Parts: sequence; C-alpha cells; structure tokens
Amino acid sequence: MSAAAGYGDGLPIAAFATAPGKSALTLVRCSGSGSLELAAGVFSAGEKLLRAKGNTVLHGWIVAPEAGGQKREKIDEVLVSVFRAPKSYTGEDGLDVSCHGGTAAGNGVMAALRAAGFRDALPGEFTFRAFMNGKLDLTRCESVMELVSAKTETGRRNAVCRLSGVLENEINAVKKTLVEVLAGAEIFLDYSEDEIGLDPEEDAGRLPGRKPAEAALARLRKLAESWKRERIYREGALAVIAGRPNAGKSSLFNLLLREERSIVTEVPGTTRDWIEAWVSVHGVPVRLADTAGLRDCDDPVESLGIERSLGLLESAELVLYVINGKEGVTGEDLAFLEGLGQKPRLVLWNKTDLSPMPPSGETAAGSPLGISAKTGEGAAELAEAIAKAVAGQTGTADSEAAAVGTARQKNLVEAAAAELEEALALAAQEEPLDLVAPRLREAVNLLGEITGEVSTADILEEMFGKFCVGK
Amino acid sequence: MSAAAGYGDGLPIAAFATAPGKSALTLVRCSGSGSLELAAGVFSAGEKLLRAKGNTVLHGWIVAPEAGGQKREKIDEVLVSVFRAPKSYTGEDGLDVSCHGGTAAGNGVMAALRAAGFRDALPGEFTFRAFMNGKLDLTRCESVMELVSAKTETGRRNAVCRLSGVLENEINAVKKTLVEVLAGAEIFLDYSEDEIGLDPEEDAGRLPGRKPAEAALARLRKLAESWKRERIYREGALAVIAGRPNAGKSSLFNLLLREERSIVTEVPGTTRDWIEAWVSVHGVPVRLADTAGLRDCDDPVESLGIERSLGLLESAELVLYVINGKEGVTGEDLAFLEGLGQKPRLVLWNKTDLSPMPPSGETAAGSPLGISAKTGEGAAELAEAIAKAVAGQTGTADSEAAAVGTARQKNLVEAAAAELEEALALAAQEEPLDLVAPRLREAVNLLGEITGEVSTADILEEMFGKFCVGK
Repeated sequence: MSAAAGYGDGLPIAAFATAPGKSALTLVRCSGSGSLELAAGVFSAGEKLLRAKGNTVLHGWIVAPEAGGQKREKIDEVLVSVFRAPKSYTGEDGLDVSCHGGTAAGNGVMAALRAAGFRDALPGEFTFRAFMNGKLDLTRCESVMELVSAKTETGRRNAVCRLSGVLENEINAVKKTLVEVLAGAEIFLDYSEDEIGLDPEEDAGRLPGRKPAEAALARLRKLAESWKRERIYREGALAVIAGRPNAGKSSLFNLLLREERSIVTEVPGTTRDWIEAWVSVHGVPVRLADTAGLRDCDDPVESLGIERSLGLLESAELVLYVINGKEGVTGEDLAFLEGLGQKPRLVLWNKTDLSPMPPSGETAAGSPLGISAKTGEGAAELAEAIAKAVAGQTGTADSEAAAVGTARQKNLVEAAAAELEEALALAAQEEPLDLVAPRLREAVNLLGEITGEVSTADILEEMFGKFCVGK
Repeated sequence: MSAAAGYGDGLPIAAFATAPGKSALTLVRCSGSGSLELAAGVFSAGEKLLRAKGNTVLHGWIVAPEAGGQKREKIDEVLVSVFRAPKSYTGEDGLDVSCHGGTAAGNGVMAALRAAGFRDALPGEFTFRAFMNGKLDLTRCESVMELVSAKTETGRRNAVCRLSGVLENEINAVKKTLVEVLAGAEIFLDYSEDEIGLDPEEDAGRLPGRKPAEAALARLRKLAESWKRERIYREGALAVIAGRPNAGKSSLFNLLLREERSIVTEVPGTTRDWIEAWVSVHGVPVRLADTAGLRDCDDPVESLGIERSLGLLESAELVLYVINGKEGVTGEDLAFLEGLGQKPRLVLWNKTDLSPMPPSGETAAGSPLGISAKTGEGAAELAEAIAKAVAGQTGTADSEAAAVGTARQKNLVEAAAAELEEALALAAQEEPLDLVAPRLREAVNLLGEITGEVSTADILEEMFGKFCVGK
C-alpha cells in the first residue's frame, strides 16, 4: 500500500491524546525510534528514563531543553509512562506524558517536546504506525475511530467487537475459503491432464469447491447487510417530525429532547429550514429533525424551506406525523400521509390534555398514538414506539456477530461478493476455469484490502505451501 | 482542620481526569485503599493487576463485572497504570485507566468501575487526599488548580513556581523566624528574673528578636504586594476601549483579536452593554472590553448601557481611548479624558489611513499613538504599548521569587502582616510582652493556615524542643 506523504517517515512524533479543556490532566503521546532519547533531554530524570524498562511509570518534571549551562526552567510536573518496542500501541518505542490539565501546561510540554526534536503527529498517525508495524489490521484501525466517535452504548459495543478482531477474523475466514477454492482451480490450469489425471475439457465448469464458495458468498452477503444496522448506530436514524402548522411539532421536539436525558450532541445543525438534535432513544441514536410547517403559502422563501423539508422526508428512516388533536384529522393530514407511500411512520394525536382521542381510538388516519407534548403524557410510549420502529428496520443484532463498521468495508465486501457471484455464475455456465479464476482472485484481493494485507503474496504462499510438487 | 462532608471517608473513588470531547484517549483516575482489588474485578488481567508492582503499566480490557457465570462483555481495551501507596499522587493505592476517547468508551469504563464498587470522586478530592496524606501542602494544592486554569505561559510559570514549593518554603521560613521570636518572648513570660538573669520590668518593650521580626514583616509585605501582579496573570488586566460613536472602537477590538493570535477564550461574556474577549498581549492576559459609544442620548435603555460602561471603566486597569482622526480631538474627548483622573490610559488616533496625525504628533489630547484599525497600521506598536502599560502596574517579576497565587493566601498574608505590625508597634510602645506575644502567636497561626499545618502543635514543639530546661 502507498502511504500518504509524511506518514511514512518514522520520525519521533508527539501529539495531544486528550481533548482540550479545563481538566485535571492532559495526555501527550510520543512515539518513534529514538523518542525516549529525545524525551530524556527535557525530563528531569533523563538518565532514569533512558534506563527505564518498558511499561513503567516515572515521576518527574518536564524542563526546558539544555541551553548553554543556564538553569533549566521547570515546565510541568508529570508522570511519564515508558513503552519499549514492540510492546506499545504503535509497536515502536514511545511514551505517554501525563501533565496537568488546562491549556498552558500542555502547551508548555508540547513546546518542550518540539524543542527536543519531536514533530507534531499527523492525524491518525499513531494508528497508522500500529498498522504498518502489524499491531492492528485495517478493520481494527477503523474500529478505533468508530469507538472514539461512538454516540451510544450500542455503538461502543459494536466498535469494541471489531476492535477485538471479530470482523478481521470473519474476513480472514472467508478469504481462506476462497483461497482454497482458487488453489483447487489453479491446479486445473497449471497441470496437464496426465499429471493429475483430469481432463480440463471434461471438467470445465465443474468448479472444485463450489459448495464452500457458495457458503462464503452467503457470509459476505450477511456482512454487507449488517451495514444498514451499523450505519444507524453510527450515523443515527433520521426521524423527521412533520405536521400542519400549530400541530405542536416544536413542542414534541422539545419534549423528546427533555425526556431522553442522554442527549448526545446539543443541537448541532440549525438551519433556516429545520432544527436537528441527537437523542438516544432506548439506546438507538436518533437524529431528530423538526421541519418547517406544511402549508400552502405564497412566501417564496418559506416555500423553499418546505421543499427542503420534503427532501429531508425522503431520506428519513421514520416520520413522526403530528395531528393537531384540537382540529382532528384534516384532509391535508390525510393527503400528506398518503404521499408518504411505504415510508415508515408513527401517527401522533397531539394535545390529548385539551382534546382526547376518539373513544374508539380510531380516526380517519388509523389508530394514532395519543400524546400531549405539553404535559408529557404518552412520552414513554412514544419513545418505545420510536425505538421499536427503528429496531424493526435494523433487525435484531447478535452483538457477537461480525459486522462491517465503515462504508469502505461495506463497499469492499459488496464488491468481493459481486466477483464471487460472477465466478459462480460463470462456473455454472460451464465456462473454462481460466475465466472463473480471475474473478475469484479479485474477490480475494478485495477481501485482503479490507484488512489491509498485501493481497497477492498470501495466495501464492497458500498455493505453493499446499501443493509443493517440487516444481 | 475539618473536612467537608463526604471528603473524609477514604473510600475508593473514580473520576474522569481528562476533558470530555472527541479525542484519542480518556483518562479515568481511581484512588483509595482497596482500589486495586476493586479494579481487578473488572479487568481482564485481574490476577496480574493484584500482583503488579507500583508504577507499572498493564495492557488489557475493562470487562463487565462477574454475573452468574455469564460471558463477560468487553467494555474497552485499556492501559492501566498501577500505583502503590505511598508512591502516588494521593499517597494511596490507585490506578489510572487510559481508555479510548469520545463519550461512549469512557462512560462504559466508568459504569464498570461504579459496578465494581467505586464511588464518583468529589471535586478536588484527589488533591484533598494528597493534602491529607501529606503529599502536598495547601499552597501547592492551590497551585494545581491555578495551573489547570492558567491562561498564559506566564500564568503557567507562576503556578509551577508555587507547585514546586517556592511559596510554601517562603511561608515556612517567615514562620520559623516568628516562632523563634515568639519562643524568645515566651522565656520572659515563663521564667522569673533570677532564673534567666533578666528583669522583665526593665526589658518591657525590648522585644528579643525585633530585627528578624522586622525583616519578616518586610517579606510578608512583599508577598502581599505580589498579589496585584499574580491576579492580573490569573484574571487578566481589564482594558476598556472607549471613545465617541464612530471613533472605530469595534474595529479596534476586532483588530486586537485578529492580531494577537493567542486568543484565550472566544468572546465569553456578550452583554447588551459591552463585548468582552480574552487576548494574550505579549504574554499578558488582557480582558478586552468594547463599550457602548459615549454620547448624550434620550434613549433610557442606551443611557443605562452607557452608565454600566462607565462602571466598567472604574474597574479598568487600562483605558484605550479612541479618537476619530477624521474629526480630530473634540471637546467631548477632552472632557472624557479629564474625567478619567489618574486612570492609566492610552490615547489612540484612529483612521490614520484617511486622516494622518498632525505632523508635530501633538494634539489637544497630548501625543496619541497613531493607528488604523482598518489597515492594521500601528497594531504592533499598540500591542507593545498595552503590554508595557500593564506591566508597569505589575512591576517586573522575578519568576523565581515567592508570590501568592490566591486571594485566600493573600488575605492570610495580609492578616499575618497586620498582627506582626501590631506586635512590633506594641513592643515599640514598651507594652509588656504578654500583650505582644499573643499577636505574634496569631501571626504564626495565620501563616500556618496558609500551608494548612495544624497551627499550634508545631509552635509548642518548637518551644519545648529548644528550651527543654527539664521542667
């Protein structure tokens, strides 16, 4: 693989590993061959640092670098955790400097480390080095980023699953199967009839290992399908609140924000056209959007807003449609719901405190859920219904099962599945194996790209290692 | 000393030690007797943790607590730094758990630690324990908080100076002197003339050790004076921009924000009446305030704003008065400057791009500094002038000299100085030593309060240890 410029230089690097802000501690991470020697130059117990074993913690001061015999200024009192290659995150020598929190102490420590010869690490460079040094495959590298940006407990659990290697193992298992199938096919191509007692003509289309290949395809399809669920846990299910003006859409929005305590981000994107906020509904991250009211209007700006809101509706995983209980179900409401087609929706009868639902529970718009955005009545039922509606789309997840966690992984899995499918189709059409084999090889390469392995050496190794007929 | 409720229980505690936010790592700090045993219950390598030496780092997973033989869920992959009493920040057994950044991983780890039996630490509780266990005196405890909230490099340096014990040592040195003076005085009170060969009547007013006591007073006064400078580094010097409407006050405000890259906070308090921002001008933290324009007006709301702006002027360390170069110095300008009395100010002739300064550089308002808030002309000179004007008020600081860092310390130093001054005055008026001694004793107690020592035991010890005449 080719490294982005700057990533491959292997020089000692340093960077803040914790978020800026007022806190007790700030962690500065350093890695690279020679990093302990550089750090020793700005550490009060430099000699001790040079002699320190890996996985030990030293107490001391970061001090200004030596400058012509002057008394060296103390920068901050710190703990230094020493790591020795290969027993470190990156696989290189390195250290974590735990200094005081706030901005000034950390900045002072970083300045001293720069003066000592460290360069600022590029984004993701520690994990990049961990990959280059074989500490993590690409799926686990990606899970680190997933974990850091996980917005719910389930998001964390899914990422941890991949971090512990579940996806890597699944990809490798499928790849191993395909490599074996391919190796079997290559025999047909490399050896003449009399050498292995088979007639290539006669065996055309009889792909050795069709059964395992079909099982592998099923596993890849299952993996690709897992993306829909995982994506919702990563990006949130979009739930759009819609309804006529004064139906109580904004009150409902606020109610859901208030009821669900675990607000993940505080109203990030506010546009002229809609307001959005992340809430965690029974562990499912929901991007809740409050749209502009729907009405016929002559104001072109407002029309535009409504148009965009309709675009938002298109991509919604769930529509929360609010009926103004005081007015009951109107023709406009019915027309809107009709227009939603197959889009999953929850119909809500709002303002039950003023206008209760019809005793039968039945309306022209079906059996809505009664709520009062004002008093909070029905809020718990609503949350449950939202979670259920979203979960209905994601399917029940086996938390231990392999699943893809990024669009990159999903695209590669789908591409590999497509190649494999094509290979099986060609074989079924009794095409010669030298048309089938390249498809298989490409599928193996694509799977190797997922984990970041160099994608041909292992095929060769597998083949020669197994056959080894002295050629 | 008495501990606030909850602080004194000594139970195992845990808390986030790093700021929340998207980052590579989050650090959770745990301390307390039994904390390693509790943590071992939710750590994949629990046995190894129990046997681990202090100051070592273990790699493993935080896992859910044991629950009836079920497979234990992995929460996060972590590094655990183990500390064994007394070699830790708090002086207790403890551990730092370095887990993945973001919200979900840290929350999962904290939840597991709570389930294991840790309680959430109270604010400052780790440092409180460090104090109770004799790891830090009160001045150093306070310097930890100073350091964490330091806004500039100089603020950090001042805090680090106290963290390394410079203030503690100075207080203890002055206290030792006073204890010796007091011990000398007590001899006169405890022993009769024939025992020590002195006539108390004759020696009334002749305080033994007057010279050292006077030197101690000078040191306390110097310490108390250091507060003005330290306070500016902690709280920032208030520089108020004033001037007639359209003089270019807001443009100047924006220019200073733009020029001085190291903005410390991004426009915190915005009120109807003025806008405020922190900037670091040559290392001096400045609270820059842009006030409402000054003019006679009939709008009561605006009048109120102007009134409040005038209140702000009262507390300013520096006034940046902006003259509209296009109009020149007006009577209103002169009246305003006159009204400032002795308040330090910089008079600025703005809009030099359109209306240059008079060639002589002299105006009715003295020799203003020419600037163009629009083009940036004169900005560097202005920054230098601001830094100089503020530094003129703080005096030149010896970065190694002891200085007080909190209002508490300053108040106790002043109170001790007042007691000592009174003692010296009484002695000078030849009052009996039994009127002088209580004043000295109170000064010693007040100094002991600064460092947090129990403030009588040591006096007694000093006296009996020295005298030890077999009584």
